[in-house]
Amino acid sequence: MIRQSAYGVDPWLLRETPLKLDVLAQSESIFALSNGHIGLRGNLDEGDPHGLPGTYLNSVYEVRPLPYAEAGYGFPEDGQTVINVTNGKLIRLLVNDEPLDIRYGTVNSHERVLDLRAGTLTRKLDWSSPAGARVRVTSVRMVSLTQRAIAAINYTVEPVDQPLRLVLQSELAANEELPRGGKDPRIAAVLDAPLVSEEHQTLDGARSRVVLVHKTRVSGLRIAAGMSHEITGPERMRIGTESFADLGRTTIAAEVPVGGQVHIVKYLGYGWSSQRSKPALVDQVCAALAAAQLTGWDKLLAEQREYLDEFWDGADVEVAGDAEIQQAVRFGLFHILQSAARAEFRPIAAKGLTGTGYDGHTFWDTEMYVLPVLTYTHPSAVADVLRWRQMVLPEARQRAADLGLAGAAFPWRTIRGQECSGYWPAGTAAFHINAAIAYAVTRYLSVTPDSAFESEVALELLVETARLWRSLGQHDAAGNFRIEGVTGPDEYSAVKDNNVYTNLMAQHNLACAADLVEKLPTKAQELGVTSEEAASWRDAAASMYIPYDSRLGVHPQHEGFTNYARWDFAATPPDKYPLLLHFPYFQLYRKQVVKQADLIFAMQVRGDAFTFEEKVRNFAYYEPLTVRDSSLSACTQAVIAAEVGQLDLAYDYLAEAAFMDLADVEHNTADGVHMASLAGAWTALVGGFGGLRGHLDPISFAPRLPDSMSSLAFRLRYRGRKIRVMVKAREAHYQLIDGDPLPVVHHGEEFMLDSEPVVRKIPPVKAGPRPAQPPGREPYKRV
Amino acid sequence: MIRQSAYGVDPWLLRETPLKLDVLAQSESIFALSNGHIGLRGNLDEGDPHGLPGTYLNSVYEVRPLPYAEAGYGFPEDGQTVINVTNGKLIRLLVNDEPLDIRYGTVNSHERVLDLRAGTLTRKLDWSSPAGARVRVTSVRMVSLTQRAIAAINYTVEPVDQPLRLVLQSELAANEELPRGGKDPRIAAVLDAPLVSEEHQTLDGARSRVVLVHKTRVSGLRIAAGMSHEITGPERMRIGTESFADLGRTTIAAEVPVGGQVHIVKYLGYGWSSQRSKPALVDQVCAALAAAQLTGWDKLLAEQREYLDEFWDGADVEVAGDAEIQQAVRFGLFHILQSAARAEFRPIAAKGLTGTGYDGHTFWDTEMYVLPVLTYTHPSAVADVLRWRQMVLPEARQRAADLGLAGAAFPWRTIRGQECSGYWPAGTAAFHINAAIAYAVTRYLSVTPDSAFESEVALELLVETARLWRSLGQHDAAGNFRIEGVTGPDEYSAVKDNNVYTNLMAQHNLACAADLVEKLPTKAQELGVTSEEAASWRDAAASMYIPYDSRLGVHPQHEGFTNYARWDFAATPPDKYPLLLHFPYFQLYRKQVVKQADLIFAMQVRGDAFTFEEKVRNFAYYEPLTVRDSSLSACTQAVIAAEVGQLDLAYDYLAEAAFMDLADVEHNTADGVHMASLAGAWTALVGGFGGLRGHLDPISFAPRLPDSMSSLAFRLRYRGRKIRVMVKAREAHYQLIDGDPLPVVHHGEEFMLDSEPVVRKIPPVKAGPRPAQPPGREPYKRV
Repeated sequence: MIRQSAYGVDPWLLRETPLKLDVLAQSESIFALSNGHIGLRGNLDEGDPHGLPGTYLNSVYEVRPLPYAEAGYGFPEDGQTVINVTNGKLIRLLVNDEPLDIRYGTVNSHERVLDLRAGTLTRKLDWSSPAGARVRVTSVRMVSLTQRAIAAINYTVEPVDQPLRLVLQSELAANEELPRGGKDPRIAAVLDAPLVSEEHQTLDGARSRVVLVHKTRVSGLRIAAGMSHEITGPERMRIGTESFADLGRTTIAAEVPVGGQVHIVKYLGYGWSSQRSKPALVDQVCAALAAAQLTGWDKLLAEQREYLDEFWDGADVEVAGDAEIQQAVRFGLFHILQSAARAEFRPIAAKGLTGTGYDGHTFWDTEMYVLPVLTYTHPSAVADVLRWRQMVLPEARQRAADLGLAGAAFPWRTIRGQECSGYWPAGTAAFHINAAIAYAVTRYLSVTPDSAFESEVALELLVETARLWRSLGQHDAAGNFRIEGVTGPDEYSAVKDNNVYTNLMAQHNLACAADLVEKLPTKAQELGVTSEEAASWRDAAASMYIPYDSRLGVHPQHEGFTNYARWDFAATPPDKYPLLLHFPYFQLYRKQVVKQADLIFAMQVRGDAFTFEEKVRNFAYYEPLTVRDSSLSACTQAVIAAEVGQLDLAYDYLAEAAFMDLADVEHNTADGVHMASLAGAWTALVGGFGGLRGHLDPISFAPRLPDSMSSLAFRLRYRGRKIRVMVKAREAHYQLIDGDPLPVVHHGEEFMLDSEPVVRKIPPVKAGPRPAQPPGREPYKRV
Repeated sequence: MIRQSAYGVDPWLLRETPLKLDVLAQSESIFALSNGHIGLRGNLDEGDPHGLPGTYLNSVYEVRPLPYAEAGYGFPEDGQTVINVTNGKLIRLLVNDEPLDIRYGTVNSHERVLDLRAGTLTRKLDWSSPAGARVRVTSVRMVSLTQRAIAAINYTVEPVDQPLRLVLQSELAANEELPRGGKDPRIAAVLDAPLVSEEHQTLDGARSRVVLVHKTRVSGLRIAAGMSHEITGPERMRIGTESFADLGRTTIAAEVPVGGQVHIVKYLGYGWSSQRSKPALVDQVCAALAAAQLTGWDKLLAEQREYLDEFWDGADVEVAGDAEIQQAVRFGLFHILQSAARAEFRPIAAKGLTGTGYDGHTFWDTEMYVLPVLTYTHPSAVADVLRWRQMVLPEARQRAADLGLAGAAFPWRTIRGQECSGYWPAGTAAFHINAAIAYAVTRYLSVTPDSAFESEVALELLVETARLWRSLGQHDAAGNFRIEGVTGPDEYSAVKDNNVYTNLMAQHNLACAADLVEKLPTKAQELGVTSEEAASWRDAAASMYIPYDSRLGVHPQHEGFTNYARWDFAATPPDKYPLLLHFPYFQLYRKQVVKQADLIFAMQVRGDAFTFEEKVRNFAYYEPLTVRDSSLSACTQAVIAAEVGQLDLAYDYLAEAAFMDLADVEHNTADGVHMASLAGAWTALVGGFGGLRGHLDPISFAPRLPDSMSSLAFRLRYRGRKIRVMVKAREAHYQLIDGDPLPVVHHGEEFMLDSEPVVRKIPPVKAGPRPAQPPGREPYKRV
């Protein structure tokens, strides 16, 4: 486990010093750079040692068969797995006659810094070879947010105290050997040598360039990777470039005096396509490299900072009195931005482009956890992701048809749009992903009015998902609209009737679809929506069945849940968590035990469907049942804990979400960072202590801080404005940074926010006793 | 499809004439011979052509991995598959220079006869080679019911109209090439060359003998197969015997004049063990062959008939007015007997030893469908099978422990005792198999008092299954004992709460276990049962929750079932059945659609838990929902249809059960016959029209015939007696064939049955309108 202070405590930096080999794979995820199109894990320049070498391109995947001991109709036969593409991060170094490898010789100092404002990963290494030859290496790595196809590395090596013969090998390497995954089904299957070489091109000389073209064996995607260099060094220097099927290499051999150095700027360009020809792709990569070289390293850096400055101006969160949380929430925002900035009509995977966890698939967490943050901080990325969902509507419609349903059934997990879930009770049955997409659409429209999106994208997504729900549910004899046999967010219950979260989300989906159809009648007609059809959605929404246990005064997570036996928590020692690795689904599904917020999540996203007293009772009921074996849970529990006045508990959950990766709470950060949990830190702060709730109109806050936080400030983008909210113990300050005046609600009271800041008192809250969690499952305790 | 008249209509024979190549695989199943230890499919002597070559030994299996796209805790990693062992049926024939192959030349006549009283398969072939050389071949094949390790073939070939040079090759062949299975998950995986040769021994000469010894690659079972011969023929005859790793061959070359013949009696001996040494097994097989040869062919035949005569004397069913049903029910009884007669501490597979369907696994149908028949007709086989269940208690206890449960959890499907189900919702979750075993135990004890079995076997099985149920269920706040998240018999519902069948069967299990503990206190103490534990079983049984829908006045199959949407039968064309091959489980599980009798089966086996009016209403409710995509359903529907007075419908269901294999109703008889459905024909007659109900005391009948059946008579073994019941339209005749007087109940009225036959009137019944089945799913219509 990483200690959450492993990366120093700095508001804008993560600093690792010295290098910690035992958590190498985790730090590769933490230090991953991405722009949403290209992702580079934080592997060391010289390649070895590594935890998991990783270079990813959004949506580049290979197909693998999904086997079944007993197959059933509609079980997906093919899976999709993110693959490690051609690695351009490699710069190997020979010092006299010894390869630089920090496992040998002496590391005099080693520091890596991830700069959240610069958007760079800097490394400083002072190393002596076993023979005593000492060098200083500095590398700065970036994946450009402004030039989508480009990454770049600025690499300098210099002798410290004696002239040295240095050989640098700057490489492109395809089909790298990868470590084998374990038995945990969540760790992505490792695919051996998925790339088939199609071409390799060498341009020798000072601006040495190599382009390698490969195709994936089964999915048939063509990938071009190129590198070019700007090299300076001593007089006695020779440069040679060569390429092979799976390797491009520029070799720089130099005799470097003390005071001298070899300096490389390495530009990496990537392109891929399922359709474009080989020459077209090669040209695309060469052009991208040419453009980047024209820009040059310094300008690339400047562009990067400018891009980030603009982001932070509308997105920053300031936490006073807790430097660790301060650092963590910015780290989270940075990764969220990286995952999405240039995704552009491609999905955001659960791990972004930071690792192979979950096979590189995108799930509902994108819409329900990550997009809320982006909606208020970088809304164009939200529109892009949802346009991708629209692009894969054909696959979703086909899936719905295969399942005997109307409309579109989006896949539970996918890269390219086809369902890739190999266990349907926790995959296909989790239809709530469709409502999540619809919810993300309406959230985006509420926060960022965008009439083109509304008619081009939103309507179709809402209509097709509403059709799905209408065909999934049915009216019972009493006229209730029921949705049977589906799986809600909590994966320790599956294939249940009338999951409250699902039914409330479907209700929202159906009602919003009907509203938008009413607003855009012509476009709706083009989609074949009749007024009868829209009326049937309104009717289903209005008569949606929401089970309630009046004996206990709580909502059962699904019909019958509160009749179940409680899980025997007392007999479950800490080493039996996560439960799914130690107990059969059979037992989990039939007991009162909750993997992750489900009913509680419903109270966050459909707070309007619950009274405050119901929220209090439900929270008290579910806390002792919720084991948080999912990283998606803590942030939601933080938000509702804050709402019901359990502010200290909310604060603890905030920390769990915030340190999920920095402290490797679930021991799987090695496979990539948890985008949803990183987003959750923001949500716990802004949604929890800021009390911001999704798309209420006017925008609405109910801020309230725990004692241990002296102040919290956050910036939002909202309907073309930038707003800053600062919360203190007894009052909240609202400030319009940019844009037109707007109405704002503070704890139920509406006011106009104009150029003048507004201060409002925070009403006190009286909370009951702090609810207990299952033994051993208290929130993460900071080290 | 086979027409049900394909095998002639004869009360004691199945006669196929001519050979039908298009249903070769089906007829191989129909004509399979077995004694429960050895099984020989009805392959042609000469091997080619074939549907599926098959020679099976009870419990000889190979292990194969069970793959999962997404594995979960407790999913079985290894499956078990029945394998085709060394084939000794082969006798190839060369006529002059042409191999006898009925696809070439001219088949002048071809007849096969399965004789249900002789226990033999006879074949008569008159064939002319393409060159016009004509032979007559007669073969009689048997698998001995009296000498467990032995099968034998009496083979004669004679020239018809010219002297011929004949070469016979009598073989033992291992690792035969098998046809590939299709995509249907129910068809067994075909394993390539599962046998590894360990030894081959040849004894040349007139009594030529070969023994081949093999071991299975993974499961490590050693198999010895031997053949020896008695050969007579013309003077000009040479006999030679040789053996190889996978082949033993005795070659007989003869010049045969018109009027001459070559005649072979081929004895086959089989032995296998997971423990015994190679020499021990070889000796065992040679000894079995020596014993068989001492007995000789004629005496083997006589023993066989004697064994069967004794069986039929206590088991025969006579149906007047329906010769097809008459034949079918005896055919069924014959196969049931074959599957069990000499199984001796081994399981009875769903297909017996007639094919590789369902991987050769045994399921709950053995206990709930097959054993009822054997309990009243051949009870020692029941004790044997249940002793096998006791033998695999260690595996069942381990499985329960793995699942976090007490007692024993028997596998849903297995050969050797380990769970082999690769889809847990329709496997592990079907815990009712445990109650089925307990029910079979109590049924056997009720019909065949057996105090050794009671204390040695019954108590332990009842105790361990009662423990399972006690740990599976829980008391809710109102004190009801509930069993959540299990799968009942109907596989179109899975993982549901409070399945009525399951709860009623568990109730029976718990109560009977407590009763037997009370009866056998010392033995119970040895099993660690305290009076507190037994009391907790009684309590759970007494407070068992049985859901009831008072609005509709019917029992929901499981809690909530009657709230579900009805399957859209009108929109389901006939070619979409069986539904599981055309619709996802997801949809099936959430709709009112029933694959096979479930609640209706509960009314058969726990009739005491329902009023007559409830039975009438439930039957009327479930008939239009039940699609009978399982061969287990028709017989149960026949029984309840008869009970509620729907006698014509019962008669139609009887026919469906009876002709399941003879007419290949489900198009999979090629994989082996359906033991449960064959048993179901008996149950439909004896349980339906005879009104016999499981272990009531005194034995109880409520006979009533449909108009189209003029009389029905059946013989039963009951508590050391043989009884014959003859039912006519208005009266029933009870006769004690053998044994002491006993009380009998006829339509609720008790009388003493002594040496004098007793005649009782049959009260009339008033039935409502005949209920409709889903469109296109009416009972099988006879051709």
